[in-house]
Amino acid sequence: MTGEPKSDPSRVRRNAIRAKYDQESINEILDAGFVCHVGFESEHGIVVVPTLYVRDGDSVLLHGSTGAGMTRAVRNRKPLTVEVTHLDGIVAARSHFHHSINYRSAVLFGTATEISDVVEKLRGMELLVEHISPGRWDEARKPSDSEFVQTSVIRLKIEEASAKVRTGGPGEEPEDLETDFWGGVIPVSTVFGSPVEDQENTPKVGVPESINETLSKWNK
Amino acid sequence: MTGEPKSDPSRVRRNAIRAKYDQESINEILDAGFVCHVGFESEHGIVVVPTLYVRDGDSVLLHGSTGAGMTRAVRNRKPLTVEVTHLDGIVAARSHFHHSINYRSAVLFGTATEISDVVEKLRGMELLVEHISPGRWDEARKPSDSEFVQTSVIRLKIEEASAKVRTGGPGEEPEDLETDFWGGVIPVSTVFGSPVEDQENTPKVGVPESINETLSKWNK
Repeated sequence: MTGEPKSDPSRVRRNAIRAKYDQESINEILDAGFVCHVGFESEHGIVVVPTLYVRDGDSVLLHGSTGAGMTRAVRNRKPLTVEVTHLDGIVAARSHFHHSINYRSAVLFGTATEISDVVEKLRGMELLVEHISPGRWDEARKPSDSEFVQTSVIRLKIEEASAKVRTGGPGEEPEDLETDFWGGVIPVSTVFGSPVEDQENTPKVGVPESINETLSKWNK
Repeated sequence: MTGEPKSDPSRVRRNAIRAKYDQESINEILDAGFVCHVGFESEHGIVVVPTLYVRDGDSVLLHGSTGAGMTRAVRNRKPLTVEVTHLDGIVAARSHFHHSINYRSAVLFGTATEISDVVEKLRGMELLVEHISPGRWDEARKPSDSEFVQTSVIRLKIEEASAKVRTGGPGEEPEDLETDFWGGVIPVSTVFGSPVEDQENTPKVGVPESINETLSKWNK
């Protein structure tokens, strides 16, 4: 039931959880998704909320309404912790102990600031939109002044980060291989389906390029 | 870009983010998944880590190695915050401001304790295994004494919880409906694929019932 690496080196090579600290591994995990889980201290204790993100060099950019708890925490100079996890499989071992999941996960620590510069903030909005939906920035209406000020864009400069990756088949105790229990992996993937047009206000145009690009980007 | 509800009640009815506090809504979100994001205070500040969970009445059960940061936090009487999020869609509006995601998310606060009672702890392990993989408890080797003591099972009694759910199509400003921009939703789902048998140690038996049950449970 736990996935702690064993001391046998061959076992570690094959299916241990690997801790990674290099920027390339961390960036790869960050760039493979757009939903993160942000932890911060609030008046009610530690809160963890899901939100969207994009990596921008050695930062991640987040956004939210100006009154949201996360924005208030940043204004109060509270640090943010950002976690990103991709679930890749359920690992079924011959023993319960070696049941596990395959996943890629990163945790980021750093200083968070609300972006006040107008040009940098607008660029942040564009990076968020374009990360999730490539080409969409030009295929929707840009923010009005009022919408612009209602939205906070937050930069978390990554000062510390770690990643954990588990891949491969089940770890097993040698004696369990003699049993008739089954061992293997159920692969898990996130699938982005066919676009459904607005049911209430039928668009005047067909599915645009940016939506098809979004599907190609995330369905790989 | 934000999903804050508007004051127009018809708009709110149609596609606002709904905050929910009733136990049934929260249980439904919890029971629809098995990976959560746990926030807690550590020596390094707030940490957020992914881990597996099962709901047990008005608690959630977590597990981990006895030396893990989460277990240490519980032993040090630090509270845990648990967040569960299911991503259901990317919502593309005619304006960037109304772009959003469809999701179901719950955040839980409560007192966490490490289960010391042997019977209750073993039952916790069984609940975790059976939640993720129904029928698997009898189709794999039970924990040995050594494996049993290496694993902590933690009960978080839910004392406070809130949920947020967004469904439906894009919110739009009335004037944006006159434009030729497209509006709609890209549905997102998690897909559990065909089981892949252990490549290194080919099982002596075919895919067992518990693995098929796991696929039926999560692929609905």
